[in-house]
Amino acid sequence: MEKLEMLYEGKAKKVFKTSESGTYWIEYKDDATAFNGEKKGQIAGKGTLNNEISAIFLSLLKEKGLDNHFIKKISSTEQIVQQVEIIPIEVVVRNITAGSLAKRLGWEEGKELPQTIMEFYYKNDELGDPLINQDHIAILGLATEEELADIRNQALKINEILNEYLLNKDLILVDFKLEFGKSPAGDIILADEISPDTCRFWDAHTKKKLDKDRFRRDLGNVEEAYQEILRRIGGSVNV
Amino acid sequence: MEKLEMLYEGKAKKVFKTSESGTYWIEYKDDATAFNGEKKGQIAGKGTLNNEISAIFLSLLKEKGLDNHFIKKISSTEQIVQQVEIIPIEVVVRNITAGSLAKRLGWEEGKELPQTIMEFYYKNDELGDPLINQDHIAILGLATEEELADIRNQALKINEILNEYLLNKDLILVDFKLEFGKSPAGDIILADEISPDTCRFWDAHTKKKLDKDRFRRDLGNVEEAYQEILRRIGGSVNV
Repeated sequence: MEKLEMLYEGKAKKVFKTSESGTYWIEYKDDATAFNGEKKGQIAGKGTLNNEISAIFLSLLKEKGLDNHFIKKISSTEQIVQQVEIIPIEVVVRNITAGSLAKRLGWEEGKELPQTIMEFYYKNDELGDPLINQDHIAILGLATEEELADIRNQALKINEILNEYLLNKDLILVDFKLEFGKSPAGDIILADEISPDTCRFWDAHTKKKLDKDRFRRDLGNVEEAYQEILRRIGGSVNV
Repeated sequence: MEKLEMLYEGKAKKVFKTSESGTYWIEYKDDATAFNGEKKGQIAGKGTLNNEISAIFLSLLKEKGLDNHFIKKISSTEQIVQQVEIIPIEVVVRNITAGSLAKRLGWEEGKELPQTIMEFYYKNDELGDPLINQDHIAILGLATEEELADIRNQALKINEILNEYLLNKDLILVDFKLEFGKSPAGDIILADEISPDTCRFWDAHTKKKLDKDRFRRDLGNVEEAYQEILRRIGGSVNV
């Protein structure tokens, strides 16, 4: 398989065509951004770490019956995935208050939510990824009612699988962001990545943050936190 | 009936207890605010105009079978309403893009929406009345699923009634905000007001704005716009 022209460069990844139809070639970058690109930086080794972390999580989900775009890791920073068209909805699932939810509701961070919260954001940098509801999704034509129900069900199942898995690693899954894509056959499958860039992970005992909040909030030891996540989920840190 | 102590002073109205149980005494003020209280001013005669305009709309809705808190107008700026506990959700119904929806979606103002849009905002000045979804409403304990469905149905019915009525007056109902309350018996009924403070009204032919946007956007002739609305719906402008 050959890497062909770049299709898209995002904040954390580049996506390339490949010589094999139905697949994309993804390259994870060390670039880190926060607050809709207002804060920029680099996290040494992040591309390598997230490539491996995401490969582990996406493989786990496949094993548990939750299909997704991951095919195989091919180098320290690259993986091959199934070709999908990304649906421009950022699906956020929350178990504990943090970040924008804490601000929106005026609640302190770290409160266990009485039920799982799901939020949809319109993936649109120019607009600052605003929160949207089902009516907005309908008029924007982002997903039909059935597709949104499918996305919601998959997101809740992913939350269950990851929660159980991570608790065994002494990690709390505070919240996370998912992106789904549509396959050429019209199926909606999980795409993008699952990593400390897209999830909030806290140590179950100390509540230490082990995710991108260390970068967003200048808490230091950012690389070490990502390494710690990889170590806990059984990956090799010698990258 | 006697006016007793003040229970609450909002941006546009004061609410008093009365000597008759089950009722409140509402006084409409001339004060105008916008952008969550950041812009402040007075609109001469607004209290009088909105008291009459709201009385007309709420009476119309009652006639059409949509129960609400209105009982009777008792002076130029005062009306008696049924006692309810306001549910802190601002229910926004939209037929045409304007204001925050245009900003949120990156659409120009004045576009007819392919379907009616409903939005829920958390009525909380400190938090700036943020947009919320059904999950947020659930964890905030603002309304049960059944109550929210009831609110949604009533809001859509109100939209139908007002749209038809206003089109006959050569007015377009662009969008509007409703507040609902819970009666002592537990029924959810429409409360608050329906006026150029809470609705966007455009002239059907010229598209001239005849609502609080004239104040928000410094368009001038604010009082005249409110008077024009009252004139079109058959009220007496000699107030």
